[in-house]
Amino acid sequence: MKITILGAGGFLGRKLAARLAQAGELNGRAITGLTLFDLNVPPPPAAAFPIRRIPGDLANPATVAEAIPPGTDIVFHLAAVVSAAAEADFDLGLRVNLQGTLAVLEACRRLERAPRLVFTSSVASFGGGQGAVVPDDGRQLPANSYGAQKAMGELLLQDASRRGMIDAVSLRLPTVIVRPGRPNKAASSFVSAIVREPLLGLPTTCPVGPDFAIWVCSPRRAVDWFLHAATMDTAVLGLDRGINPPGLSVTVAELLSALEAAGGQEARSLVTFQPDPAIEAIVSGWPASFAATRAKALGFAQQDGAEAILDAFLADDLKATKAEREMA
Amino acid sequence: MKITILGAGGFLGRKLAARLAQAGELNGRAITGLTLFDLNVPPPPAAAFPIRRIPGDLANPATVAEAIPPGTDIVFHLAAVVSAAAEADFDLGLRVNLQGTLAVLEACRRLERAPRLVFTSSVASFGGGQGAVVPDDGRQLPANSYGAQKAMGELLLQDASRRGMIDAVSLRLPTVIVRPGRPNKAASSFVSAIVREPLLGLPTTCPVGPDFAIWVCSPRRAVDWFLHAATMDTAVLGLDRGINPPGLSVTVAELLSALEAAGGQEARSLVTFQPDPAIEAIVSGWPASFAATRAKALGFAQQDGAEAILDAFLADDLKATKAEREMA
Repeated sequence: MKITILGAGGFLGRKLAARLAQAGELNGRAITGLTLFDLNVPPPPAAAFPIRRIPGDLANPATVAEAIPPGTDIVFHLAAVVSAAAEADFDLGLRVNLQGTLAVLEACRRLERAPRLVFTSSVASFGGGQGAVVPDDGRQLPANSYGAQKAMGELLLQDASRRGMIDAVSLRLPTVIVRPGRPNKAASSFVSAIVREPLLGLPTTCPVGPDFAIWVCSPRRAVDWFLHAATMDTAVLGLDRGINPPGLSVTVAELLSALEAAGGQEARSLVTFQPDPAIEAIVSGWPASFAATRAKALGFAQQDGAEAILDAFLADDLKATKAEREMA
Repeated sequence: MKITILGAGGFLGRKLAARLAQAGELNGRAITGLTLFDLNVPPPPAAAFPIRRIPGDLANPATVAEAIPPGTDIVFHLAAVVSAAAEADFDLGLRVNLQGTLAVLEACRRLERAPRLVFTSSVASFGGGQGAVVPDDGRQLPANSYGAQKAMGELLLQDASRRGMIDAVSLRLPTVIVRPGRPNKAASSFVSAIVREPLLGLPTTCPVGPDFAIWVCSPRRAVDWFLHAATMDTAVLGLDRGINPPGLSVTVAELLSALEAAGGQEARSLVTFQPDPAIEAIVSGWPASFAATRAKALGFAQQDGAEAILDAFLADDLKATKAEREMA
């Protein structure tokens, strides 16, 4: 089985590539080739099968076609201009998130068999706010360009699946925590920072109150969902290729309790509340919970609790994150 | 006030141009220029203001920019590859309905002031079927490429409106009846044909049963909605630029009663029922009714009954339709 990861250089793309390399197979079929594509592709994980690495621009159809060679069975399309960047540069967002996704579809149409296409959409394609529990057939009325472009991509891939050109599953990912790396300008940066920074021994501020709730998943669980979306029976999906996977609705207070459980009172005391109305205005529009009934029935694994999310960070990413900080 | 009609050569575009030419003003402001754009632009209506006519391809940004000159206040974007054609040719549909709409947005962004953009979307962007009454926040899960491309266009224009680039109102038009012209391959062709053909003295068949219900409007009412969308206060719309205007849910039996009222038992007897499972399979997926509560509150006029729709056809289009048939 031949697999391509678009956006293989990103945080989740690297974890997905490592998982595939380690397993060597997917759903009982041996992996015979893996293509990693991104603007800058990182070193390949050690694997028993050949790995091609192609750096390039997602909006360039010729490069994308090279990244999806004849015989490709599964394409993971994780490449995107993310939310803060798409909001800062409308044209860049359209070029990569919309025209890039059109280029991916074009490349897939050239294959002899319609490939499975796992597309990472986002909860940013929904509105709703703190009180919302988004139903499985909830309307996507995005309040940001990234969400709008992701919802457009879903419509395109849904229609192309109906026509038999591809076999798409679109996963509307929750906010993925704990992200390694530094705090950044993303409005959601604090959700990872309030646990990551204290676990690194560093102070940090929380711009929203302890009752603020957010829909999250761990990187481990996101990769589980990618693999399930890649191998599930899609005949049962009918027209509707959009999945709200079963994340976790967690409050800041619950995250801080988990932090205290993992790092003690000392770690907890490194977080101070410092209200930031600008950030609060943005994140309070995000839906805090989803029904996710359909995804559970389709076999997508439930995200476990806040403590498990922190444990995964400690086991998978703390050491590398520390090393990176010390190098910088 | 300067106005552009994209898709000015179509059935509705011609009626809109004629209405503007006759009125000479919109919402109390004199029209100082009108640009008509289409692949082939028809003769201009007689008007007291200058009319430019530009034939061209909607997917060509340079041509579209020419059609939306500096100082344009209102753009009516009616240009589209319609449902049967977009289904038959996926690439053509994407090129015109998606890339063309991107070109329209590009041209609008060059203007000194964000113009009002009235976009014709479609009920084809919804599923639901005979039992459905689509709520105002109903999800668009289209079962056809035309509807998917229209829903993508809505997302794009909604986001561009949020960013202040344009000021869009997207009208999801019902099936517009009575269409002049001949029966064609569109699955909805029969809805006009079962009243138009008998009024021309011609026999016709109805592929669905008398209880089949469909969401319709007259061309007159569609033009009323275009003008209201062009002049309404959009501040109240918030993020949500999509409008389900208050059409009429009508059954085949009701249309045939109206036909009998307009043309007598003789006209009614020219319609015979001849079930067509292929057509039934397509049209039975269309939602038969919409709540349209928001549109009514926003001042969009309710579609009047089936008899009024037939009267409008008799008054506005019967003569020309007869003449065309005799010429052919």
